[in-house]
Amino acid sequence: MVIYSYRSTAYWNETDAAGIVHFSNYFRYCERAEEEFFKKLLGGFPGILSKFSVIVPRVKASCEYHSPIYPHDDFRVDIVDIVLGGKSIRYRFEVFNESRGIKAADCEIVIAIVDPRTMKSIEIPIQLRELLKSIGARERDQDKV
Amino acid sequence: MVIYSYRSTAYWNETDAAGIVHFSNYFRYCERAEEEFFKKLLGGFPGILSKFSVIVPRVKASCEYHSPIYPHDDFRVDIVDIVLGGKSIRYRFEVFNESRGIKAADCEIVIAIVDPRTMKSIEIPIQLRELLKSIGARERDQDKV
Amino acid sequence: MVIYSYRSTAYWNETDAAGIVHFSNYFRYCERAEEEFFKKLLGGFPGILSKFSVIVPRVKASCEYHSPIYPHDDFRVDIVDIVLGGKSIRYRFEVFNESRGIKAADCEIVIAIVDPRTMKSIEIPIQLRELLKSIGARERDQDKV
Amino acid sequence: MVIYSYRSTAYWNETDAAGIVHFSNYFRYCERAEEEFFKKLLGGFPGILSKFSVIVPRVKASCEYHSPIYPHDDFRVDIVDIVLGGKSIRYRFEVFNESRGIKAADCEIVIAIVDPRTMKSIEIPIQLRELLKSIGARERDQDKV
Repeated sequence: MVIYSYRSTAYWNETDAAGIVHFSNYFRYCERAEEEFFKKLLGGFPGILSKFSVIVPRVKASCEYHSPIYPHDDFRVDIVDIVLGGKSIRYRFEVFNESRGIKAADCEIVIAIVDPRTMKSIEIPIQLRELLKSIGARERDQDKV
Repeated sequence: MVIYSYRSTAYWNETDAAGIVHFSNYFRYCERAEEEFFKKLLGGFPGILSKFSVIVPRVKASCEYHSPIYPHDDFRVDIVDIVLGGKSIRYRFEVFNESRGIKAADCEIVIAIVDPRTMKSIEIPIQLRELLKSIGARERDQDKV
Repeated sequence: MVIYSYRSTAYWNETDAAGIVHFSNYFRYCERAEEEFFKKLLGGFPGILSKFSVIVPRVKASCEYHSPIYPHDDFRVDIVDIVLGGKSIRYRFEVFNESRGIKAADCEIVIAIVDPRTMKSIEIPIQLRELLKSIGARERDQDKV
Repeated sequence: MVIYSYRSTAYWNETDAAGIVHFSNYFRYCERAEEEFFKKLLGGFPGILSKFSVIVPRVKASCEYHSPIYPHDDFRVDIVDIVLGGKSIRYRFEVFNESRGIKAADCEIVIAIVDPRTMKSIEIPIQLRELLKSIGARERDQDKV
């Protein structure tokens, strides 16, 4: 299931001397998808802070690269899964090269829900949890559909 | 006169510890505007190479910063002037913060027209010159309207 | 065992609006450690290509983040393990915040050994394999010391 | 006169699909030179803030590009001039490609001295002015040696 799709073009500054998008930029593409998703939902990361008094540092990030993205290729990042832990959220992303019709990467990012005053992880605020579930997120112990 | 407008959002990875978009990223925003402009016109930088056998290295770049762009602000880069020299093209850009209704920066980039076989500057190919003039570029010695 | 150590400082442009190094930059820090390591050994990625006629695209990358790196913190990336597969190499990195005396992250990067003419994975060239073993790399099926 | 020299290597992630360092990264290289310079002098940008209660946003930045920097080239950024205005400081940088023995770029950055409480430009604190003059900065109206 696709929860949210972000589309962009691979810009020149995102490529490297191999003539393809640098592997580190896939993490930025995925984060941008998350940002657009949250921007729509809540006014972005600043919105999460002002509405729920939490910040969302990254605790894990990983990508498997299948196929390169070339300069000016159009690509799409699909958020295909959002798993709600107790104090963390795990996203799964698929990066799809639309110009070439092939999957470019599978990525995952885990964010912690952190109280900025104590800098400690806290439970996902219940209203945020319900909001995320209403648009397709699932509980960690729930079977994936 | 606005020749082309590129719109985007300021992403988290483009900001710095001052809480605003890092000054180096304005150059990337302007280049992206140029890329989208050329992509529409010619299939991007790869298209310039395949259609006109030239590459377009940057020889000068400058920005004056007026007002910050904050995380998740929407902004617009207007290409407001394209000046055709003999062997170079000068762009003038205005970066406008749409979320805050204020100009963020004035920037200029000068590119050389280079033959990739000799790596020497050459005259702007006449067809490229005419094409650019047809969408609003002007000759260097021409009065600005 | 530390095979190679790369030291640098966290620069302003590498931080984000949270006031810390952006998570994507840890991948760049680890790649830089690999580059310095290869530069010493072989003249860098260009040296790998000219000496062994292979390129080394990334196929997997992951980081676990333990503790932030702040602007102008000094940090160290240790290559703590290099595992030689048949057609791939797996690096394990530890990113250590020297200014604060705490581990910042554990990262892994897997590169493929690719023939640039066919763009297919090939066996690690035997001379490269022996060279890497001579400075501390191990075979995949070998017990870690 | 060279006031400060910063040395580094051009890393893979700093290059683009033209096989050379992306033009926007020269601004980052110059800022890094400034950071190392200030780190030595004052503990970096955070040190400027804690010691003089000012922040130093960029108000102008420009580069002229003379010659490319290739992956893994060693380069040097010389701060060759620091000019103290009333409420701003202008740096002039020379970027020199040490691996190829050729100047890569001439750059300038102008920073404002800003009170973070009011976000208005203020006079350079007299102690900072004297400190900078003691290591080679000059007053704006002073002849360049």
